[in-house]
Amino acid sequence: MVYMASYIPFNLLTFYLIINKITRMKKVVLAFSGGLDTSYCVKYLAESMNLEIHAAIVNTGGFNEAELKEIEKRAYALGVNSFAVLDETDNYYDSCIKYLVFGNVLKNNTYPLSVSAERVSQAVAIANYCKQVGADYVAHGSTGAGNDQVRFDMIFNILIPEVEILTPIRDNKLSRQEEIDFLKNHGVEMNFDKAKYSINKGLWGTSVGGAETLTSYGYLPEEAWPTQVTKQNPEEVTLTFVNGELKGINDEIFENPVQAIQKLTEVAAPFGIGRDIHVGDTIIGIKGRVGFEAAAPILIIKAHHALEKHVLTKWQLYWKDQLAVWYGNLLHEGQFLDPVMRNIEKFLADTQGTVTGKVTVALAPYRYHVIGISSEHDLMSAKFGSYGEMNNAWTGEDVKGFSKIFGNQTMIHHKVNSL
Amino acid sequence: MVYMASYIPFNLLTFYLIINKITRMKKVVLAFSGGLDTSYCVKYLAESMNLEIHAAIVNTGGFNEAELKEIEKRAYALGVNSFAVLDETDNYYDSCIKYLVFGNVLKNNTYPLSVSAERVSQAVAIANYCKQVGADYVAHGSTGAGNDQVRFDMIFNILIPEVEILTPIRDNKLSRQEEIDFLKNHGVEMNFDKAKYSINKGLWGTSVGGAETLTSYGYLPEEAWPTQVTKQNPEEVTLTFVNGELKGINDEIFENPVQAIQKLTEVAAPFGIGRDIHVGDTIIGIKGRVGFEAAAPILIIKAHHALEKHVLTKWQLYWKDQLAVWYGNLLHEGQFLDPVMRNIEKFLADTQGTVTGKVTVALAPYRYHVIGISSEHDLMSAKFGSYGEMNNAWTGEDVKGFSKIFGNQTMIHHKVNSL
Amino acid sequence: MVYMASYIPFNLLTFYLIINKITRMKKVVLAFSGGLDTSYCVKYLAESMNLEIHAAIVNTGGFNEAELKEIEKRAYALGVNSFAVLDETDNYYDSCIKYLVFGNVLKNNTYPLSVSAERVSQAVAIANYCKQVGADYVAHGSTGAGNDQVRFDMIFNILIPEVEILTPIRDNKLSRQEEIDFLKNHGVEMNFDKAKYSINKGLWGTSVGGAETLTSYGYLPEEAWPTQVTKQNPEEVTLTFVNGELKGINDEIFENPVQAIQKLTEVAAPFGIGRDIHVGDTIIGIKGRVGFEAAAPILIIKAHHALEKHVLTKWQLYWKDQLAVWYGNLLHEGQFLDPVMRNIEKFLADTQGTVTGKVTVALAPYRYHVIGISSEHDLMSAKFGSYGEMNNAWTGEDVKGFSKIFGNQTMIHHKVNSL
Amino acid sequence: MVYMASYIPFNLLTFYLIINKITRMKKVVLAFSGGLDTSYCVKYLAESMNLEIHAAIVNTGGFNEAELKEIEKRAYALGVNSFAVLDETDNYYDSCIKYLVFGNVLKNNTYPLSVSAERVSQAVAIANYCKQVGADYVAHGSTGAGNDQVRFDMIFNILIPEVEILTPIRDNKLSRQEEIDFLKNHGVEMNFDKAKYSINKGLWGTSVGGAETLTSYGYLPEEAWPTQVTKQNPEEVTLTFVNGELKGINDEIFENPVQAIQKLTEVAAPFGIGRDIHVGDTIIGIKGRVGFEAAAPILIIKAHHALEKHVLTKWQLYWKDQLAVWYGNLLHEGQFLDPVMRNIEKFLADTQGTVTGKVTVALAPYRYHVIGISSEHDLMSAKFGSYGEMNNAWTGEDVKGFSKIFGNQTMIHHKVNSL
Repeated sequence: MVYMASYIPFNLLTFYLIINKITRMKKVVLAFSGGLDTSYCVKYLAESMNLEIHAAIVNTGGFNEAELKEIEKRAYALGVNSFAVLDETDNYYDSCIKYLVFGNVLKNNTYPLSVSAERVSQAVAIANYCKQVGADYVAHGSTGAGNDQVRFDMIFNILIPEVEILTPIRDNKLSRQEEIDFLKNHGVEMNFDKAKYSINKGLWGTSVGGAETLTSYGYLPEEAWPTQVTKQNPEEVTLTFVNGELKGINDEIFENPVQAIQKLTEVAAPFGIGRDIHVGDTIIGIKGRVGFEAAAPILIIKAHHALEKHVLTKWQLYWKDQLAVWYGNLLHEGQFLDPVMRNIEKFLADTQGTVTGKVTVALAPYRYHVIGISSEHDLMSAKFGSYGEMNNAWTGEDVKGFSKIFGNQTMIHHKVNSL
Repeated sequence: MVYMASYIPFNLLTFYLIINKITRMKKVVLAFSGGLDTSYCVKYLAESMNLEIHAAIVNTGGFNEAELKEIEKRAYALGVNSFAVLDETDNYYDSCIKYLVFGNVLKNNTYPLSVSAERVSQAVAIANYCKQVGADYVAHGSTGAGNDQVRFDMIFNILIPEVEILTPIRDNKLSRQEEIDFLKNHGVEMNFDKAKYSINKGLWGTSVGGAETLTSYGYLPEEAWPTQVTKQNPEEVTLTFVNGELKGINDEIFENPVQAIQKLTEVAAPFGIGRDIHVGDTIIGIKGRVGFEAAAPILIIKAHHALEKHVLTKWQLYWKDQLAVWYGNLLHEGQFLDPVMRNIEKFLADTQGTVTGKVTVALAPYRYHVIGISSEHDLMSAKFGSYGEMNNAWTGEDVKGFSKIFGNQTMIHHKVNSL
Repeated sequence: MVYMASYIPFNLLTFYLIINKITRMKKVVLAFSGGLDTSYCVKYLAESMNLEIHAAIVNTGGFNEAELKEIEKRAYALGVNSFAVLDETDNYYDSCIKYLVFGNVLKNNTYPLSVSAERVSQAVAIANYCKQVGADYVAHGSTGAGNDQVRFDMIFNILIPEVEILTPIRDNKLSRQEEIDFLKNHGVEMNFDKAKYSINKGLWGTSVGGAETLTSYGYLPEEAWPTQVTKQNPEEVTLTFVNGELKGINDEIFENPVQAIQKLTEVAAPFGIGRDIHVGDTIIGIKGRVGFEAAAPILIIKAHHALEKHVLTKWQLYWKDQLAVWYGNLLHEGQFLDPVMRNIEKFLADTQGTVTGKVTVALAPYRYHVIGISSEHDLMSAKFGSYGEMNNAWTGEDVKGFSKIFGNQTMIHHKVNSL
Repeated sequence: MVYMASYIPFNLLTFYLIINKITRMKKVVLAFSGGLDTSYCVKYLAESMNLEIHAAIVNTGGFNEAELKEIEKRAYALGVNSFAVLDETDNYYDSCIKYLVFGNVLKNNTYPLSVSAERVSQAVAIANYCKQVGADYVAHGSTGAGNDQVRFDMIFNILIPEVEILTPIRDNKLSRQEEIDFLKNHGVEMNFDKAKYSINKGLWGTSVGGAETLTSYGYLPEEAWPTQVTKQNPEEVTLTFVNGELKGINDEIFENPVQAIQKLTEVAAPFGIGRDIHVGDTIIGIKGRVGFEAAAPILIIKAHHALEKHVLTKWQLYWKDQLAVWYGNLLHEGQFLDPVMRNIEKFLADTQGTVTGKVTVALAPYRYHVIGISSEHDLMSAKFGSYGEMNNAWTGEDVKGFSKIFGNQTMIHHKVNSL
């Protein structure tokens, strides 16, 4: 009771609070995936640093209920103090994927940034969870050799600068075997066999790494791809976009584009569409190769782009490309929180006002092509003259004049410089 | 003899020369293809304007000997005063295609600019021929509805500003039937049936137009494509690049990249690779669609790009893309003679110093994928740390410091603005 | 009354309406300035084409009441059927100048686009007036040698495609003397003396053309500048920006930025600040030179830019520049109605959320410099480390790591290529 | 003698060599400026690390003979083992300044990158000197708070990766007083008074830091500027450019542009021209302000740009700007050795083929303006039509046609979307 407090001498109360603060176990939020690295982190952080461990896994559409239950079980078995699933799928779409579609973002013209985008969403969710839990530390299981460490570090530095970052795997430079030995010594029993291919699955695609991607030469074999090719007969699929967002697959309309993406994955992934190997520049300056399977992202982007080619002006297409390349690059490099990203999003969103229509795509094993589009905003219309056909919208004289003026400066340049 | 001249009274000589100038028939160089439009032009220019007609056809790799002979025969049958084949294939490669490869130029991420590039080369060749012939006029058979008229007009305006441009089809706004009637009335017998698909063939790809491409919806049927699919069994092909230029196909080395391109077409076209439909902005502001088949261009560009991703730095790749998009756009819009194009070529060429190596591509009916590359300039090397693997080239501390500084400004922005 | 109509036989009514339509005089809206060219247009359009003439002048801040009254008087004296002043000053600011400030737009790093911006606003206002009046024609007094004709033509073609454009001066290729003679023959008495310098005054600056600007060499003499230098003693002026818009001059706060701009002109123009000569590419391909006096625009842009350098991130500054250059170029070339301009405006506006603060500028005859800024969004704060000073925000180790990773790829490039 | 060696048992010889290698003093090359920081480094490196100290100072045009002699004296007094002056002025011009002129590079539209450019040249020269000396270490006196540390680190990491970098001031986080105390304790007597303004002088401008530049508000007082204003009467100066390089000042022609730059500095600096304060983003993410005085760089760039506006095409100007901004940014951030910089240099150099002519500039205290240019490559010529004047190069009809086609797509957009 409050009045009681006044009986306790002030310095005694203060003393008690300070002691409590000193002696209470410090809290760490650990981004937990259930794999070897983050399992090691649980044991290591608990034993070496005596921390209260709050494991959290961020679901960006890559895990189903059963998988999450399994991971939870493993977390508690390892001794975490709490375990949380942060469901970010919708938020991931709204804050990031949506703009990747608006911008038709394919890194190096190839890769839909499946993992990069996901990591950023995960880091933001973990940072927010740290605030909620009142964490003193935040830990991630990254090694010192990839992009993810930079993405996690940067977003934590920016959003929760007062929370210290712990990265036991990176700091201790542990080999896989050392981690296994450490866990065994601490009584942990789990399947320590390394999978032949490392897989990272999310709403916006699945990455696949293996021996073939570690060098500059080699393609992934059939069995490495997460989705096997089970459809052989060609199909057509129609994607309905409303203001740039995927809202329908064939005759089915979805409130939530997330569901449309999932439906399209169902339809197209069994064709083995959207597989490729991305060669890119990592944030840390080395080149890296990674396989990916992204049927829905690839089809959505290609269909969306086809629609845009019909409904946007030349300069809209040009500037969208310019900004989208950077949106992708900055996202890739963990700079998602730079305010310029919000500015770019405003631009991209504003271009989508007329990006409404249907796009039909032909699907076949390992390939697809866009058949055509229909949109009330289509700028290609016989009313305004058809390419290569006679028309009444302008005259030959108009074009003559245009050509004369359009080439005027170059003509002058050639005359002046006698070329 | 010179001294004779002095005997002729001056005003008489002058008079004679003037008369001669007036009475001599004026010369027109006609860009002749042998089709209905340019056949009409021959008759029209001869009869209505009383011109001496010098027909010329520019071969940029799309015609064989027999076809050229046939066209020559038709030209003389129509009554031209002279006929010339201007063989520009090598020059076309050297002055243009080479840079399209260096820049991985695909208009709207799709189209290798097969026709645009060719037209520009043709126009330049015709302009030079006009100078050689001493032409008073230059004529082309363009209608008023396409890109080609602008390309021809602009390049003629720039290179031969003193030569007047004649465009009977555009000026007279003739329908196909009116042209046919005119020719029949002038005793011309030829096959006037319109082909179901209009084809334009060149070294850098073949365009295909038809009913399906006149609207926003529809894909070309199998029979419309110039090369039919006759190969069913997957193959691998290895492309050897030397300083960015294609010099080898499998074990065969070619002095002249033109031959390598032709060889690759032979190998890959029967797979139906490199087919697609391009939707684009014409120079005259309308949208247009056109099918194309470009097995070699597509494979070369994708393979070349794959190699570049391994041997160039991030900023080289970025700036090449920037400049190449413009190179393509300005070429497409007939601005090939703007001196900025020469400047861009210098940049692109300078980036190719390390673009030497081999790229292997898997071919199958209607599809392909890059298997991998080998190059002594490959920046992806385990010596410098492998993506996601332990390494000794830098420490976890280095990356921590990097992340801190790399995100410093955004961190400050968030603190200052209490986000 | 409606029921009466039914008594009139249908074909008679129709006949009446048709006759009425045929016989009524057709209407032209003439963009009228009161000068020689548009005075000629009034007489010419009335006499040669028998049109009903609706003169309109668009005020974008360059005319005062007395000047407008004088122009109205002249219009009626010439015989126009109606005369209207379209006051576009606020609208001009809201739809255009605002974004020129957000983007710090100076064409070729020099010219605030004083005239270009104004013409576009004027053309849009005239187009809207045409709709209101129900005009059959729209006329402007442009010659065939400048940018304005293209701006007017394009905006009319886009906004009122059904209204035919008349340009008597351009079409008739009249010399000044021919126009004067025509007017004298039609009894028009006005001062036909040509001013030594042609002046175009608006809210966003005044252009000055004269003999010195017609060639590549020569600066305007003191007397040519519209505002004479009457202030000799240095002053300081403080500009207050709120979300990028100028809202205060020294201690005075303005609701409407237009008033702040006018106030700043009052303060700074008598120093002769903001004078220069712009050399630029016209839309029609030739080079042109024009003098301008733009004290307020130049000071606002430089002050605004100084503030932005403190409150925006590196990439915000970079992308603002990129988009702003294009915004300026497309505006200059009359492409203001391309929807990409609206998209760019959204981007620019979104960046201004933190562009709030005060900027102090020192003024002296013919020159100025920015003294400094204050803003609660300032990212330059000793809290986060001072440039070149010791700090606690990061360590030397952090920077070492940063340098290592930041230069990693170039290091690898040099090793691989043994440079 | 060689044959003797064979008598020494092999393991003994090896042992001797190893010992010799171990016992020989290791060598450090120290970038020495003679100031407090690098004086501290001499003593510290000698005493704490027992290194053989090879001091080197790079002259990029900022030091005269007397100053260099004084610095040499100080170096030997501190006890260095050797001292070298690396004269890089010409090389600095050839490898860097030349391109800054070609690109009209002004960081943030203001700053000629005086210090950034110099540091890079210095770092490269020191790296080469390390190879020559066979250094084990390279040391620089940077603190942990500026750009220079990153530039030095990066270039050393890239060019001499096997040489370890030592940065005693940064590592030991020493205050000024601690350095002074250390030096006093080691018997060093020198003037330890801190100058009120820190000055860095080079061929391409002088930077000035002081209390006024440490915060966001404040301008440097008259006495802070290195060159005092001693010229009051206006002058005109004519700069002659040959292929973009400054080769003449008034009637004097220089073989070496370095001399022309020095001459122009002599002429213009006493007017107080080229002073300003730059606000910029440091490499390490904080904002920084610095004063600079750069009469010659500013005048050269503005004059060169004026000439280019007359002789280059619109797209040449545009792309030069694009690439030059990046050239400046990458240079600023120490990325000078990225191969893209060489590619950009090729582009920029190629644009300069027609940048030959004379530019006259009016100089007055604290200000200047370009009067005009003359060049045989000038694209502004009455022959091709004058801006705003009648001409015969094209007709009003040509421009009408141009406007129609140029605005065609936007017209269609407005019709389709009923705007």
